[in-house]
Amino acid sequence: MHLFYIPEITSNSKEVKLSEEESKHACRVLRLKIGNEIALFNGKGDLFLGEIIEDHPKHCLISIKKHTFEEANKNEIHIAIAPTKNMDRIEWFAEKVTELGITEISLFFGKNSERKQIKTERIEKIIISAMKQSQRKYLPKLNVFSSLEEFFKLHKSGAIAHCFEGEKISLKSSFKTQNYPILIGPEGDFTQEEVNLALKNGFNPISLGENRLRTETAGLYACTLAKSIIES
Amino acid sequence: MHLFYIPEITSNSKEVKLSEEESKHACRVLRLKIGNEIALFNGKGDLFLGEIIEDHPKHCLISIKKHTFEEANKNEIHIAIAPTKNMDRIEWFAEKVTELGITEISLFFGKNSERKQIKTERIEKIIISAMKQSQRKYLPKLNVFSSLEEFFKLHKSGAIAHCFEGEKISLKSSFKTQNYPILIGPEGDFTQEEVNLALKNGFNPISLGENRLRTETAGLYACTLAKSIIES
Repeated sequence: MHLFYIPEITSNSKEVKLSEEESKHACRVLRLKIGNEIALFNGKGDLFLGEIIEDHPKHCLISIKKHTFEEANKNEIHIAIAPTKNMDRIEWFAEKVTELGITEISLFFGKNSERKQIKTERIEKIIISAMKQSQRKYLPKLNVFSSLEEFFKLHKSGAIAHCFEGEKISLKSSFKTQNYPILIGPEGDFTQEEVNLALKNGFNPISLGENRLRTETAGLYACTLAKSIIES
Repeated sequence: MHLFYIPEITSNSKEVKLSEEESKHACRVLRLKIGNEIALFNGKGDLFLGEIIEDHPKHCLISIKKHTFEEANKNEIHIAIAPTKNMDRIEWFAEKVTELGITEISLFFGKNSERKQIKTERIEKIIISAMKQSQRKYLPKLNVFSSLEEFFKLHKSGAIAHCFEGEKISLKSSFKTQNYPILIGPEGDFTQEEVNLALKNGFNPISLGENRLRTETAGLYACTLAKSIIES
């Protein structure tokens, strides 16, 4: 059955209108007609069975027949990463970690970030598409922080993967399944001041192994490590 | 110091000529001159210190001053994966797993593969570039198999990640650090016959978690799992 993502639908909804884009997709591309059933979800755990009651390609109307709810996984994976200079790289990062089950992505701008701003619309679209592709019922949260200082106002524990010398521990030995963001620096790494700030805020310095990884690869690897810790 | 990859250089080499492309890069782009030192490696563990003795942008000549050798890591990570329909996806797979430390990539064509042939030149270039980027001293091996039958003529143990029902074990409980290729199917998954063939050849059926992963994400995840098992 075809699956549609409608963020504004709630457990009380009786009828819902698809967006213009989704209406076109349903009625033009998929050629769905009055009486056809479709599945809907809102990225917050609610799942719906609906029936098309108006098959207009600009405002397709759905009657809700059934509602179910899937509890959220209590284990969180939160990667805080500096967007790469090349947008492609951070976009595929967002796609892959969404498939793998990340719950929160925070983008921040470090002192050494070459990229100083970001439009999140495309990344949001990629996350939604990857959520549908991988049949996840919850939309990962996406945040943007203008600096690490802003980030630390909200987060007082987690891990930081930096490239400076010094004692580091493994993610496995320190990972917590809640409130444990993992910080991944920009292409030019964190500055020593940023690392100190992280340590002062209670972040554990971690090592991601011996290979030198690109920013987005480091973020992805940290996410898969967290996933394997949770699932083991 | 600038690093150049020259596959044909050996521990006995006294002088070596850079390829036309590398000569241009060294003498035009980097503007290196006679007397400048460069580092060279062959992807087989040999490292060299060299000095430019002719700075011609088409045939730059290097005199070898010093040779060292780095032992190969004895732990193998071998992913056997069906190339994706979209070449971009298998190319970034090759880039990322090279950064992460894969030792062997086998490409095979399954019964359900939409892609029935592949040109490996671009993938080889991407692997070389990722090897340099991540400062690895060994070039991962790249193989192509026309079918799984061909693959099983060479490999009699390993793991297969398929989407059929049935008992599966974790990679962690079965992984071996040598001769243990992990098979990842095409977009349409393996056929039941291919799964049976794998089981008959001694391959363990494994699960990669609950999320539905794209081919290239599954391959990448299997690689990071293997890496984390080796490093823990």
